[in-house]
Amino acid sequence: MTYCLAMNLQQGLVFGGDTRTNAGVDHIATFRKLYTFTKPGSHAIVVMCSGNLATSQSLIEHLKRQNDSGEGSILSLCSMFDVAKHVGDLLRELIEEASGADHSQGVDFSGNLLLGGQIKGEAPRLFQIYPQGNFIESTEDTPYLQIGEDKYGKPILDRITNYALPLELALRCTFVSLDSTVKSNLSVGPPLEVLVYEKDSFDLSRCRRIEEYDEDFLNMRQHWSQGVRTLLEGLPTPNV
Amino acid sequence: MTYCLAMNLQQGLVFGGDTRTNAGVDHIATFRKLYTFTKPGSHAIVVMCSGNLATSQSLIEHLKRQNDSGEGSILSLCSMFDVAKHVGDLLRELIEEASGADHSQGVDFSGNLLLGGQIKGEAPRLFQIYPQGNFIESTEDTPYLQIGEDKYGKPILDRITNYALPLELALRCTFVSLDSTVKSNLSVGPPLEVLVYEKDSFDLSRCRRIEEYDEDFLNMRQHWSQGVRTLLEGLPTPNV
Repeated sequence: MTYCLAMNLQQGLVFGGDTRTNAGVDHIATFRKLYTFTKPGSHAIVVMCSGNLATSQSLIEHLKRQNDSGEGSILSLCSMFDVAKHVGDLLRELIEEASGADHSQGVDFSGNLLLGGQIKGEAPRLFQIYPQGNFIESTEDTPYLQIGEDKYGKPILDRITNYALPLELALRCTFVSLDSTVKSNLSVGPPLEVLVYEKDSFDLSRCRRIEEYDEDFLNMRQHWSQGVRTLLEGLPTPNV
Repeated sequence: MTYCLAMNLQQGLVFGGDTRTNAGVDHIATFRKLYTFTKPGSHAIVVMCSGNLATSQSLIEHLKRQNDSGEGSILSLCSMFDVAKHVGDLLRELIEEASGADHSQGVDFSGNLLLGGQIKGEAPRLFQIYPQGNFIESTEDTPYLQIGEDKYGKPILDRITNYALPLELALRCTFVSLDSTVKSNLSVGPPLEVLVYEKDSFDLSRCRRIEEYDEDFLNMRQHWSQGVRTLLEGLPTPNV
C-alpha cells in the first residue's frame, strides 16, 4: 500500500509520502514513490505514484528517457496542464498494454499519481491523475490531494488545511498526516519522504528522507501524542 | 454509512455512534443505532448496529420480543459470551433468510454489531459480531472496537486509548473520533449518541444524544481545532 499527499498553497507546494510496497504481508519492500524533474529556472516537476509498482516504475523510466533524448520531454512543455495530459496518457497506455497481455491473469495494473510543480509563466499547480489518464486539479477551496491509503491522514488535513496556510505549518501537518497513517496501517511505513517547494524558486532541493528511527521524527511523534492527550484533558465536551 | 465505536476499560464501557443512514446520497435519514437492554441490578447490555437497516431493525425487534415474552431472552443469560452467541446466531439467521429469498436481487443484507455490557458475576465485556455470526472480544491490549466507516476516527484512538484510560477521557476521545469522521465523511452525521457505563453500576442511563447544532458540541469542535492548530505551531519536526 501507499500513502501520498500534496498541497498547493499560497506560498508553494508540499509533498509527502511513504516508501513501503507490499504484495501480501510477507512481501514488503522499500521503493521510493517521489520523483523530480527539473530544468534550472523554468521547470520544477514532482511526481508521486501509488498502485502497481511495475506500472509506476515503467512510467518514470519512460519520462526519464524522454527527457534524456529530448523527444517528447515534459521539460519542454509550457504548462503543467500539458504535463498532466502527457503523463496521464502515458499512464493509461502502460496500464492498457499490461492489461491486454495474454497472461495478465486478472492482475490489477492500475495506479494513481500526484503531479505538482511549476513551469515559468504559470503559478504552481497540482494534479491528481487517474488510471484512465484523466485528472483533476487542486483549487484554493480544496488545496490538498491524496492517493493510496488516504483516510487515516485526512482528519488532520480537514481541520487545518486552507490555501493561506504557511508552508512551514503545512509541512508539520504533512508529517502528522503521514505519522497517523503509519500508526494505523501496517502497509504504510517509513522511510518517509517530504519535499517543500517555494513558489517561483524552481528549486526542488528542499527534500528529506526520514528513516524509521530518525530521532527528530520520534521526538515529533512523542510531542504530538502528548500534546493531543493534554488537549483532550482540557477539552470542554457536552455533558453526558 | 455508519460509524460506531466502543471501549472496554478498567473503569467501564464507553459507546459512541452516529445516526445517519443512506441509500445513495439522495436518500439520507436518521435512525438510531444504539439500543439498550436492562434488568435492574443484573443485566446492562448495549447493542450498536451497522450495515443493512432492515436487518438490524429486525434483529432488535426479535430481541425485544424475546425479552417481552421471556422466552429466549438475553436478559435471562448468565454471561455476555452467551449473549454474543445468541445475538450472533440471530444475526446470521436473519441475513441468511433475507439473502435466500427469491427476489433478493443481489442486495447486501449483512451487518456488523458491537455488543457490550455487564452481567452480574462477570466483569464488563465487549464484542464485535460479524455477519457470519461469529465474534471477537476486546482485550486489555486492544480495548476498543469499531464498526462501519472506521478509518477517519482511528488515529485519535490509536494515540490515546489504553486500558487504564479514565472514563471521562475516553468519552472525550470518543467525541473527537466521532467528530473527525463526521468532518471527513458526509455519510456519517449527527445526531450523535454516546453512552457511558460505569463498571458494576448496572445503570445505562448515562446516555446523551447530540443534535447537529448542539452548542456544547460545536464549542468542543472549535476548541479542538484551535488546539490542534496551536499544537502544530509548536511542534518540533525534522528539518527539511
